[in-house]
Amino acid sequence: VSHVAGDSVALVLVGDELLLGHVVDGNAAWLGRRLDDAGLRVVSSAHAPDDVEAIARAVRRAVEDAPAVVVTGGLGPTSDDVTREALARFAGTRLARDPAVESVIREWYADRRSAVPPAALRMADLPEGARTLGNARGSAPGVTLEVGGPPAAVVHAVPGVPSEMCAMVEELVLPDLLHRAGPLPAVATRTLLVAGMGESAVSERLVPLEAALAGARIAYLAAPSEITVRLRVTAGVGEQVAAAAQADELARTARELLGDAVAAEGGTGLAAAVVALLAAAGATVATAESLTGGLVAGTLTEVAGSSVAVVGGAVTYSTQAKAEVLGVAGDHLARRGAVDPGTAAAMAAGARARFRTTYGVATTGVAGPDPAEGRPPGVVHVAVAGPSGTRVSSPRLRGDRETVRRSAVVHALDLLRRATAGLGPAHGESRAGPSG
Amino acid sequence: VSHVAGDSVALVLVGDELLLGHVVDGNAAWLGRRLDDAGLRVVSSAHAPDDVEAIARAVRRAVEDAPAVVVTGGLGPTSDDVTREALARFAGTRLARDPAVESVIREWYADRRSAVPPAALRMADLPEGARTLGNARGSAPGVTLEVGGPPAAVVHAVPGVPSEMCAMVEELVLPDLLHRAGPLPAVATRTLLVAGMGESAVSERLVPLEAALAGARIAYLAAPSEITVRLRVTAGVGEQVAAAAQADELARTARELLGDAVAAEGGTGLAAAVVALLAAAGATVATAESLTGGLVAGTLTEVAGSSVAVVGGAVTYSTQAKAEVLGVAGDHLARRGAVDPGTAAAMAAGARARFRTTYGVATTGVAGPDPAEGRPPGVVHVAVAGPSGTRVSSPRLRGDRETVRRSAVVHALDLLRRATAGLGPAHGESRAGPSG
Repeated sequence: VSHVAGDSVALVLVGDELLLGHVVDGNAAWLGRRLDDAGLRVVSSAHAPDDVEAIARAVRRAVEDAPAVVVTGGLGPTSDDVTREALARFAGTRLARDPAVESVIREWYADRRSAVPPAALRMADLPEGARTLGNARGSAPGVTLEVGGPPAAVVHAVPGVPSEMCAMVEELVLPDLLHRAGPLPAVATRTLLVAGMGESAVSERLVPLEAALAGARIAYLAAPSEITVRLRVTAGVGEQVAAAAQADELARTARELLGDAVAAEGGTGLAAAVVALLAAAGATVATAESLTGGLVAGTLTEVAGSSVAVVGGAVTYSTQAKAEVLGVAGDHLARRGAVDPGTAAAMAAGARARFRTTYGVATTGVAGPDPAEGRPPGVVHVAVAGPSGTRVSSPRLRGDRETVRRSAVVHALDLLRRATAGLGPAHGESRAGPSG
Repeated sequence: VSHVAGDSVALVLVGDELLLGHVVDGNAAWLGRRLDDAGLRVVSSAHAPDDVEAIARAVRRAVEDAPAVVVTGGLGPTSDDVTREALARFAGTRLARDPAVESVIREWYADRRSAVPPAALRMADLPEGARTLGNARGSAPGVTLEVGGPPAAVVHAVPGVPSEMCAMVEELVLPDLLHRAGPLPAVATRTLLVAGMGESAVSERLVPLEAALAGARIAYLAAPSEITVRLRVTAGVGEQVAAAAQADELARTARELLGDAVAAEGGTGLAAAVVALLAAAGATVATAESLTGGLVAGTLTEVAGSSVAVVGGAVTYSTQAKAEVLGVAGDHLARRGAVDPGTAAAMAAGARARFRTTYGVATTGVAGPDPAEGRPPGVVHVAVAGPSGTRVSSPRLRGDRETVRRSAVVHALDLLRRATAGLGPAHGESRAGPSG
């Protein structure tokens, strides 16, 4: 058993459906974020099937990892809900019917004017010595179990239904965990979103920062053409100011090393950053999309309130639509084709004119899997037309069809960000007139 | 150590971002489904942070659970990628630079005409005695390690980037796992995609099927307004024909019970099904999107080869764009507003006319979080205009902004499917002229 800190928490997520991949587990992610925000540390997380011994084993391992364990799932009334039995086996006790819990369950059903299904009373069978956690949103109560150890630990089990899980953790489990953890080190985190660069390139630029971390941690979260740099600083109990100061200092250094490749900070997404820049400038935008087929507009409009800046756009998948809807010159299309920087520039200008917006942003290229117009997948041109001219960037993107399309969206939004913020060209960007 | 079967596999998913909830782990779900389809059983799954000892401990536990372990993540070039070190600690060996892997990495960068970042060469430092798993889609190789035990086990580690992980598991890891497992029971699965119905409505219709499963399993995978019904049959070793026959029979029954709510089968997505229907009919489509802001077009064009049917579309986020680009009558917009079935119908007809396609498909409504035009989030109208008139459906959708938008895309594509296939109206669908 390794050294465990009082602020650590281990998770056990119960359910065959998690191991079979029938659902993507959102509970683990929610718990991870919520506990980390509260200054606690999730040190391990395990999925266990609906099997008494497998759950008991997962809980035994969890208490080796941390003095506090949160278990979700397997507390309902059906025969595959065996978390109660598993907790009894883990604690070396037996299940006994709790009359108080039985009354609550009978009342729950009486309130709903339905008969108590016999199986529902299983929910009142708790490991001896356990306490219940009330569930205001469902019929299955939670269970708290303390074991003397070694290692000593508290195990909180809550239902897997997300709305019930979140409410019970928020109201009952988290206050108990924070109370047990005692005074916690101060934690400060900063995140920087870098667009248009790969993970290796970002980390290469941050080598000097990595040398100066002094106990802070840096993590890279990679998405197509987007890297989130996350800095996490801890300081002594009560030293929030010192933690924040060190985090700010590290973020400042990161910003210096990355320059204007930093597209957003503090968890703001690229689209939200672009919408905010446009809104602050009183500017509007329209899209003109070929290979991204609507995803640039779709990503911008994910932002609540984006209608202040996003007027609309055109998806011009066919060459004819590029000419007819966006007014790209037919002879240019005939001569240069759709996959061409000049075509991207003309599409952006066309969207700007058609929708009468401050900016037009356009994408064209080859998403794959097959080549088009003799160009291989990954050849992409994005363009932004605005009051001070038209900018074109022609990144060479890698990956499958979906990755190329997602990357192209990021490059288009980042070019729009640069244009709106009045920044100079990124690597690989050129200026082009509409006839390229 | 409990009894472990030869067909069991344990997963270890590495990454601080998983424990911190910065990403929802889709790799575990994909692996669970894929291995289950192949007749293997995922018996445990653990998330470990980017920490050498924590990963080594998770791998030690995994080999207690199963004779085969799949590890994802932590194999990249950055300083937080420590899975290689953890595997060496687990195996009690050291890291040594592998010259063949070093050459592959140098070539990978040379092919891309970029200098080799010094950190990238860490990816050539493998535990002594390990073999590499080639990565055709990225620079980080995988690692295979066999330990004599007890317990004896094979550990396959692959990168966490989903596209690389999937390809390497498919091509390299799964064949090895199947070879080691020996003869497995025959497994046959069938999937049916149901659009526009909730999970409880689908399961209610399938009650007679659930009574006739005879050892087969049924599972419901829920996405916004889309339920995938998954049937899984097992038979004896070598009895593939019997398994397939029982699976076909169950699928036939499911199809009878669900009727034309079945939008696709065999893993085909709704968009791919719609594109195939359009292509078979020699028909084309254009989109007109308000609340979905480009996602209907973006979803259709996710399908490789969709350009055969998808001509283009308009995102008309502002009321003015609805009038100017799609030709929706200004007095209708003034009288009825944008969130209106007649507006949806006029948008669909406008897209059809503007892009000169067989069909036009339109969405309008309130995505939230705030009400619009006095209507609450979730009020949605989708319309399809085609050769035999205009159809409108007005589902009342639930959930947050993203869920409402995703649901609206499904309802729009499903209405287009029904129109193209010549099917009658779904529940809640009405016919409407362009002036509603």
